[in-house]
Amino acid sequence: MLKYLLLALVPVSLGLHYLEGQPVLVFLTGAAAVAVLADWVRRGTEGLAAHAGPAIGGLLNVSFGSVAELILALFVLASGQVAVVQAQITGSILATTLLGLGLAMLVGGIGREKQEFNPANAGLLSTMLILLMVAMLLPAVFDLTERSTATPGDALITDEQLSLGIAAVLLLLYVANLVYTLVTHRDVFSREEEEGGEGPGWSVAKSLGIMVAGTALVAWEAEAVSDALSATAEQLGLSTVFLGVILLAVVGTAADLFAAVVFAKQDRMGLAFSICIGSAVQVALVLAPLLVIISWFLGHPMNLVFHSPLDLFAIAGAAFIVRAVAGDGRSTWFEGLLLVGVYVMLGLAFFFLGPA
Amino acid sequence: MLKYLLLALVPVSLGLHYLEGQPVLVFLTGAAAVAVLADWVRRGTEGLAAHAGPAIGGLLNVSFGSVAELILALFVLASGQVAVVQAQITGSILATTLLGLGLAMLVGGIGREKQEFNPANAGLLSTMLILLMVAMLLPAVFDLTERSTATPGDALITDEQLSLGIAAVLLLLYVANLVYTLVTHRDVFSREEEEGGEGPGWSVAKSLGIMVAGTALVAWEAEAVSDALSATAEQLGLSTVFLGVILLAVVGTAADLFAAVVFAKQDRMGLAFSICIGSAVQVALVLAPLLVIISWFLGHPMNLVFHSPLDLFAIAGAAFIVRAVAGDGRSTWFEGLLLVGVYVMLGLAFFFLGPA
Amino acid sequence: MLKYLLLALVPVSLGLHYLEGQPVLVFLTGAAAVAVLADWVRRGTEGLAAHAGPAIGGLLNVSFGSVAELILALFVLASGQVAVVQAQITGSILATTLLGLGLAMLVGGIGREKQEFNPANAGLLSTMLILLMVAMLLPAVFDLTERSTATPGDALITDEQLSLGIAAVLLLLYVANLVYTLVTHRDVFSREEEEGGEGPGWSVAKSLGIMVAGTALVAWEAEAVSDALSATAEQLGLSTVFLGVILLAVVGTAADLFAAVVFAKQDRMGLAFSICIGSAVQVALVLAPLLVIISWFLGHPMNLVFHSPLDLFAIAGAAFIVRAVAGDGRSTWFEGLLLVGVYVMLGLAFFFLGPA
Repeated sequence: MLKYLLLALVPVSLGLHYLEGQPVLVFLTGAAAVAVLADWVRRGTEGLAAHAGPAIGGLLNVSFGSVAELILALFVLASGQVAVVQAQITGSILATTLLGLGLAMLVGGIGREKQEFNPANAGLLSTMLILLMVAMLLPAVFDLTERSTATPGDALITDEQLSLGIAAVLLLLYVANLVYTLVTHRDVFSREEEEGGEGPGWSVAKSLGIMVAGTALVAWEAEAVSDALSATAEQLGLSTVFLGVILLAVVGTAADLFAAVVFAKQDRMGLAFSICIGSAVQVALVLAPLLVIISWFLGHPMNLVFHSPLDLFAIAGAAFIVRAVAGDGRSTWFEGLLLVGVYVMLGLAFFFLGPA
Repeated sequence: MLKYLLLALVPVSLGLHYLEGQPVLVFLTGAAAVAVLADWVRRGTEGLAAHAGPAIGGLLNVSFGSVAELILALFVLASGQVAVVQAQITGSILATTLLGLGLAMLVGGIGREKQEFNPANAGLLSTMLILLMVAMLLPAVFDLTERSTATPGDALITDEQLSLGIAAVLLLLYVANLVYTLVTHRDVFSREEEEGGEGPGWSVAKSLGIMVAGTALVAWEAEAVSDALSATAEQLGLSTVFLGVILLAVVGTAADLFAAVVFAKQDRMGLAFSICIGSAVQVALVLAPLLVIISWFLGHPMNLVFHSPLDLFAIAGAAFIVRAVAGDGRSTWFEGLLLVGVYVMLGLAFFFLGPA
Repeated sequence: MLKYLLLALVPVSLGLHYLEGQPVLVFLTGAAAVAVLADWVRRGTEGLAAHAGPAIGGLLNVSFGSVAELILALFVLASGQVAVVQAQITGSILATTLLGLGLAMLVGGIGREKQEFNPANAGLLSTMLILLMVAMLLPAVFDLTERSTATPGDALITDEQLSLGIAAVLLLLYVANLVYTLVTHRDVFSREEEEGGEGPGWSVAKSLGIMVAGTALVAWEAEAVSDALSATAEQLGLSTVFLGVILLAVVGTAADLFAAVVFAKQDRMGLAFSICIGSAVQVALVLAPLLVIISWFLGHPMNLVFHSPLDLFAIAGAAFIVRAVAGDGRSTWFEGLLLVGVYVMLGLAFFFLGPA
């Protein structure tokens, strides 16, 4: 039921947008509507994937799994707010790895001595976190090194070239990861604990229709949200970076966070872990590279150079603390609280940065 | 016997102070006297705690465990030497995690193939090290990020606000840690190997009297030491930062270092590990936040922005090398030597920095 | 047979050098000849070591194991190209830890579910990687800290003093490591899987002769290579740093890379791991300190201050990703691919830096 009711957010937010309502309301309802629509597009994709074989199905899920976030990011990008998109990428990684996993471990761990999850999966995903940390920090370090020798113009060009090269490597590694977990090491990673299983049971036509309609609506909402962004930030006395890194990111990953906490409460910690860390890996290994490549074709190139030391530190800190907490395949409520604590400290830092 | 003899340091150092003796002698005897008195205050606290229940007792131990260091730091702070206090915090963490644990593993490991300790405890404490690394580095990264946009005056205010926020989060996490190790997961962390047990067996009055007298004497000594600090540095041709980060820190943690080595020699490595890393965690999670909050009330605010890259690198390096060495719950003499080696390299770096 | 044929590279490269052939050809054939000769010197050393006891033999192997790289580096240093030598040190570490180990895991892992190797050894070597990371980054952090207070002249002197101090500590730790793995913990690290065993079975005279002749030829080639370096870089449109960090390093470690892949293919992953990570540790703990000390005696001092953030980041990134991948003593093809992927990304960054 809830999932139909939530669709009401779509007309409400678009109505507010065209009636020129409060930007804050447009922003919040629009961002929530994007999250709701993203869930429908994902369900449509699963419906379609169920009609294909596992390989094509996996590819479909990957390609369209982040399509809503991608569209939202492209609209924000087109309005020239590169820093907000980068903040959203950072924010998604922080929200899933620290807040989502932390809350799941905290809620799931209360009343239990510990919760265990597949150590092979925990090891792989926390290794991927270190990889994505290297990949996300490298362009900034490159830019810093280069600035001492190159002219600014040349620097911009090589920044872009390096970002494109890294994006290509990341996408290749992601495909290899699919081959690894779905083909050669299927047995090791087959989750006893499957989430729902084979999709919503829709026909091909219905699935396709929902995907197309949902994606179109996401684009419409994305325009409204990115229009309202600056005015919202000003009205709330917050920086647009804070909006991107905390508000947009939490709204955008709310469905994942909620699912992770529910599964953890049911003592299915392995699934909660896969959702949270898998989502962060998806953002860094698929969404960010696609944004780099698509934005380059669109003539609005976004590179991967995160200029804010705070962004870089937050990503590295998240990778290290998650590895420390989860590397052993066990969790307790206190470990969850540590993750939430780190999230709160980073959130405070982004908050006090103030309107830039 | 020794513990009574060492009390002679108190009149000696105070005498030298008021007779205007060599600052170097005042500094060294005063610092040693603070360490001796700190041990007496700790014993008084344990005596009092033994009369309370475990929860109140634990709280007492936490509140007064670092009271001597806290007082010393506040006096140094009041004399305007913020960098020395920050150096002392860094130095305490390095001395316990690298020098103390390293010597314990080295001495304990000679003649033994390996020494083992509770992996649950090793895992928790080395995770806490990563947490404290994030918390200690965050304000500096924030300050760096902010400086590109904010005016210096605004930057100082937000630095202070962020430090207060982080201090509050750290104190909350520390309380949660007590609940975790003393209440919900008592069995996992109950040390078969208890240190002494239920305190010195003093009456409430005697315990209280020793606590109060000891604390007052610490304050007196602290004044003498902080007065002698600059002159000592000048006479020895060293920087005050080196004095804080190496000399004050080693003197201040000497009792812990000594105890850790003795326990390791007796093959009670788990206890040695808890003393060393527990002490570092206590400094970062209790002492540093309290200093931020109390100094703010006193109108001499100290924030957590460590301006020296060397301090930040040393803390991060210590956290990573300790995790690498101790994460598996086993140690050998060579691993101990590696820790000592890193301490020596960092000490050389602080030495060569010279008088700033 | 091949090993005799490859010797033809020596006359070819020297001929090209004196006939003033294309610098690119001189550089490539010369670098390859150094690698071939290094292998002969190593074999001579093993031949001599087989006639000594294990302790003296071990010492011999350590002292002469890197003699070819050392000579090449000293010639490049004498021609004033400090940055190239530092790049070669970085490059050797990256080539063995990321490319070599990555290819070995990738090739060895295809068709196998996983490969296992001695976890004691994996743990020790990956801890050493963290140690060398701290040691290699410390001088740069020191330099950065110092520059805010000291005059440039003083800074250079203390940089040099600190580098000498760190070099001494590293050499001591390396000797202790030999005592640890060859004496006190021999049983833990005795490899069931020995590489060849007791050397080539040569007489003392033959071994000595080959060592001396090989070393002399290396010196001759080294002169040719370092002469051709700048012209080669210019002709290929690459920076000398890129030549050092990628080309020279891959050529210099080619024998190790090849051996590691062959052993991994035979499912002797432990040996492949020891070769790759052991080689990186040898570079950081023996070669780099010796270069600092010898270059100081020669009056062309090289310190350990790596000025390029990219070098520092690459070393740290390599240490963390190798620990994440190999810390558990197991490997799969995908983990190998992750290492290769990180190497490619870092290589792209060094490539796009362009001629400085």
